[in-house]
Amino acid sequence: MPEAPLPKSIATVCLSGSLPDKLEAAANAGFQGVEIFEQDLLTHDGPPEGIRAMAADLGIGITIFQPFRDFEAMPEPQRRRNMDRAERKFDVMQALGTDLVLVCSNVQPSAMDDTARAAADLREMAERAAARGLRVGYEALSWGRHVNRWRQAWDIVRQADHPALGLILDSFHTLALGDTLDGLAGMVPGEKIAFVQLADGPRLSMDVLSWSRHYRNFPGQGELDLAGFTREVLAAGYRGPLSLEVFNDEFRAAPARRIARDGHRSLIWLDSVLAGPSIPAAPLPPAPVLDGVEFLEFAVDEARGRDLSDFLATLGFRKAGQHRSKAVELWRQGGVNLVLNAEPDSAAAGHFELHGASVCATALRVDDATRALARAEALLCSSWRERLGEGERPIPAVRAPDGTLIYLVERGDQGRSIWESDFHLLPGAAEAPAALERVDHVAHALTGGQMDGFVLFHRSVFGLEPNPPMDLPDPQGLVRSRAMADPAGRVRMPLNVSEGRQTATGRFVSAMAGAGVHHIAFSTPDIASFVAGRAAPMLTIPDNYYEDLAARFGLEDAALAELERGHLLYDRDSGGGEFLHAFTLSFEDRFFFEVVERRGGYAEYGAANAGVRMAAQARSRPWSPAR
Amino acid sequence: MPEAPLPKSIATVCLSGSLPDKLEAAANAGFQGVEIFEQDLLTHDGPPEGIRAMAADLGIGITIFQPFRDFEAMPEPQRRRNMDRAERKFDVMQALGTDLVLVCSNVQPSAMDDTARAAADLREMAERAAARGLRVGYEALSWGRHVNRWRQAWDIVRQADHPALGLILDSFHTLALGDTLDGLAGMVPGEKIAFVQLADGPRLSMDVLSWSRHYRNFPGQGELDLAGFTREVLAAGYRGPLSLEVFNDEFRAAPARRIARDGHRSLIWLDSVLAGPSIPAAPLPPAPVLDGVEFLEFAVDEARGRDLSDFLATLGFRKAGQHRSKAVELWRQGGVNLVLNAEPDSAAAGHFELHGASVCATALRVDDATRALARAEALLCSSWRERLGEGERPIPAVRAPDGTLIYLVERGDQGRSIWESDFHLLPGAAEAPAALERVDHVAHALTGGQMDGFVLFHRSVFGLEPNPPMDLPDPQGLVRSRAMADPAGRVRMPLNVSEGRQTATGRFVSAMAGAGVHHIAFSTPDIASFVAGRAAPMLTIPDNYYEDLAARFGLEDAALAELERGHLLYDRDSGGGEFLHAFTLSFEDRFFFEVVERRGGYAEYGAANAGVRMAAQARSRPWSPAR
Repeated sequence: MPEAPLPKSIATVCLSGSLPDKLEAAANAGFQGVEIFEQDLLTHDGPPEGIRAMAADLGIGITIFQPFRDFEAMPEPQRRRNMDRAERKFDVMQALGTDLVLVCSNVQPSAMDDTARAAADLREMAERAAARGLRVGYEALSWGRHVNRWRQAWDIVRQADHPALGLILDSFHTLALGDTLDGLAGMVPGEKIAFVQLADGPRLSMDVLSWSRHYRNFPGQGELDLAGFTREVLAAGYRGPLSLEVFNDEFRAAPARRIARDGHRSLIWLDSVLAGPSIPAAPLPPAPVLDGVEFLEFAVDEARGRDLSDFLATLGFRKAGQHRSKAVELWRQGGVNLVLNAEPDSAAAGHFELHGASVCATALRVDDATRALARAEALLCSSWRERLGEGERPIPAVRAPDGTLIYLVERGDQGRSIWESDFHLLPGAAEAPAALERVDHVAHALTGGQMDGFVLFHRSVFGLEPNPPMDLPDPQGLVRSRAMADPAGRVRMPLNVSEGRQTATGRFVSAMAGAGVHHIAFSTPDIASFVAGRAAPMLTIPDNYYEDLAARFGLEDAALAELERGHLLYDRDSGGGEFLHAFTLSFEDRFFFEVVERRGGYAEYGAANAGVRMAAQARSRPWSPAR
Repeated sequence: MPEAPLPKSIATVCLSGSLPDKLEAAANAGFQGVEIFEQDLLTHDGPPEGIRAMAADLGIGITIFQPFRDFEAMPEPQRRRNMDRAERKFDVMQALGTDLVLVCSNVQPSAMDDTARAAADLREMAERAAARGLRVGYEALSWGRHVNRWRQAWDIVRQADHPALGLILDSFHTLALGDTLDGLAGMVPGEKIAFVQLADGPRLSMDVLSWSRHYRNFPGQGELDLAGFTREVLAAGYRGPLSLEVFNDEFRAAPARRIARDGHRSLIWLDSVLAGPSIPAAPLPPAPVLDGVEFLEFAVDEARGRDLSDFLATLGFRKAGQHRSKAVELWRQGGVNLVLNAEPDSAAAGHFELHGASVCATALRVDDATRALARAEALLCSSWRERLGEGERPIPAVRAPDGTLIYLVERGDQGRSIWESDFHLLPGAAEAPAALERVDHVAHALTGGQMDGFVLFHRSVFGLEPNPPMDLPDPQGLVRSRAMADPAGRVRMPLNVSEGRQTATGRFVSAMAGAGVHHIAFSTPDIASFVAGRAAPMLTIPDNYYEDLAARFGLEDAALAELERGHLLYDRDSGGGEFLHAFTLSFEDRFFFEVVERRGGYAEYGAANAGVRMAAQARSRPWSPAR
């Protein structure tokens, strides 16, 4: 096992822009190397020597030149022509200053199913490469005509038996076919593994070529077992670069620097997942143990602050504190703390100016804030500290991909709580009877192309694990949803993205000019009493929903009547766990609240009801203050 | 065979918005019926009786209530519960005033693989339905647990043998599995076919459930054999509605009225495709025989008109005419006519104000303009006539989905040409030597979600046939492309759509605030001479491209040098046909021109070079006038 993490590399095809843009972004994100994807060189207006010089100036190596297609086991005269083509590409490689070329298995209908011939061809190519001090790596493309498994590719490399020829392994081509690297270590000597390419992907049932060309993503963003794959590679003794090769429509359309940073983050995270007794190198502090949401902070101005206070009061929140030096109020119920920040010239004021009234910060309770911050910084996140008033306590914070802050609050700090330090706490508020107990989940609406980045951020920095993606039907289009939660279920975070602009999610993102918190759910032990006992502005649910509910679940008449009376939505999981939930009207068509009651270990979010909720929202108007 | 087209129906799930929105859009588009998709009713806030009344007011029938899922062959107690559930849904159907319910084959893991039991269950359901004057239709879902083929579903319906039970056929579920309706006519009596649902789709290799839920489209928009399917249904004696049932992410996010009109257009088109000796009813005039592009008209103001004239002059165009009464010029070369319209208070001026300098009209030469117009109008297109000056000839026009006009010009009109009627033609222009011969193709950039609508419009109205979709790599993201052409290849029209906003296609659509003509290609018999003989502002192509070209095609050195000198791109098809092409700089980053030479029957567009072209465009600046 290696003593230190392997060098990190990224293929230029992962990133958008010109070839110089891509090199710059990769270097900026801290990669040690880049794969030069041939198409990026062809479209570049300048000699390969210039790319070599640029990479050297940026301090980044060129790990490989790829791909060289449809080479092996062709009949004459293509065979001879392919050797000439190889010589021309060797010229390019020497100009680029890279010594390795990737040959991917032949997809041509005219390719022969002849292992010996393939081995002979690769041997000759390797011999020619060696004459120039170059090397060849052979990879099984998962849609190769005759060779699509790494074991077949290895069989050919072994037969060819040339020191300048090695095997290239690609996680996507292996895992997408349901294959593994089982047996690699005993079979392939580490020095015969010429290169390793990593890509994750969502589990999709489509032809592997389309899947590969459009939907790959970075380790940790998808659903494939990248850790298992990489462990096998290390066990076999491979010590070369781990290189990302991802074809993704969204990544190609996104800023190269952001995607490059996500890519590097994914490999740092992968290092930490691999760490264990047998792999000592683990430079990353462990993920924090989360203990729920300590508070959510809303950026408001004075008028919006007044309105939001009124709205919160209808839900039973009470003002519990006034900041000692700023125009900041604390509203509280049970374990839920909501901060309304109308302080001019603050980070919140900047957020308000950009996005309007909305959540500008989330505070998570963590076991060790210093360690959590160190982890975030090691994962290339930017941290942040607010300017402090006299006697105020600093709370470290990390900037989330949407630009909002995530404060790291240690529970059970010795001495005073963060509230006592910074706030005049109002007497009596703590004793008020609390119907809402805690923040159950915080749902985010994202703009197109942000899902993978958010998933990776929360997975790597906070250890939240993503559920499989699902689709929710808004009357104006589909909303793609992926929920994340920590293992103990203390912090839950559904992420939603809408391709259409007219869905509730799409409208929010337009109004916000970006991603943000779209709704906040509070848990209660008794939702029926909660809604009965309050004049909260709740979303009304049509009778037709309850008609169907009766038919679907065979509920007792009394239970059904209670649901209908309270405009409660209902779901039941396969284990008999139940979920009752209700939604408020929206605040300025920007965000809304949900009240949930979980019974019997129900761990989901009532997705079956999302269509009814979204249609009701499309019909309803935002809450308006009584004043 | 029927004497008249079957009634046309559409499922509410095809359309966006609330249930009333959907009914209104379907009625507005001229449908006779709608399928009520249950989820649309559940989310509707109002009793089913209200929907019945609304449909009646709109003059539209409710053809079916659907779907009723997971019913047949369940063990107890689910079996008994399912019968209760059916009774509840019968209540809803009676309130809605529809007599038919769709039962789709069971997908539950607990469903039994027991045809006799399935038949007995459906028989009991049909008996209960009949007691209320209702009927049941049974459909094989292509991902059904035990029943996924129509022959299996028919076997069950036949065994059940109840007059209130029939078979439902769905084109997607049949064709997506590679199945056909072969043998239907001999096997299933027409009166036992309770309902027919139609959906097309692109050929995708993915699991049929995902394909079905996201990518279905209307007949003529996809690649499945809808005509063959429907012919079999008619041959079996079915005389009920043809009903569209399409789940499509883009349709769900688009305005319901537009999608409903496209849906109705697709069924009218399908009627005409079915027409033949054995099917007499063919209300649609035949598609026009096309003979190329007569002219393209640019909306400009005075300054842009001057600049564009200068640009055209660099390509060898000469001013050939001045409109008799308007600020409109004709520029000409060979068979290419370009009209520059700067007339204030015209349709072109309106277009210019909305979109800036760009193509506002295309004129196609047709064999019979009156018939072509009648066809377009029968296909729900709006037609248009410009106000005329003294002695000017009217040219009928159809409005394309992007709002531009398509003029219909009859070739070989007796008497004067359209140019002689309206223009003072300049002497000598006709005799100028012409290097460019005709318009080869006109490429459009579309906004997201417009592809299917454009394909259907041009296919149904003008008989252009679409190629399979393909992806083109812009440095800032993928561009999805689908080319259309008439059978003789006289009118060619690639359609491009970019999900990303930063690609050349995406930037154009942003600048235009909508879809439009992105580039126009002119054909020449000798492109090398063309570019050598002119100072046209051509896009420069990097040396690396030619390095690779040599390796790929094994071109002679002289041929390669000629390509490189002229910044010509090169492609070769499998039959040895060759394509040489070159691009101009853009005009205001809005549109550009291409010059093409086709050799040996090459019929494509050089897609292999699109990446190089797009990267060169991303580097280049728009043409600027010498003045």
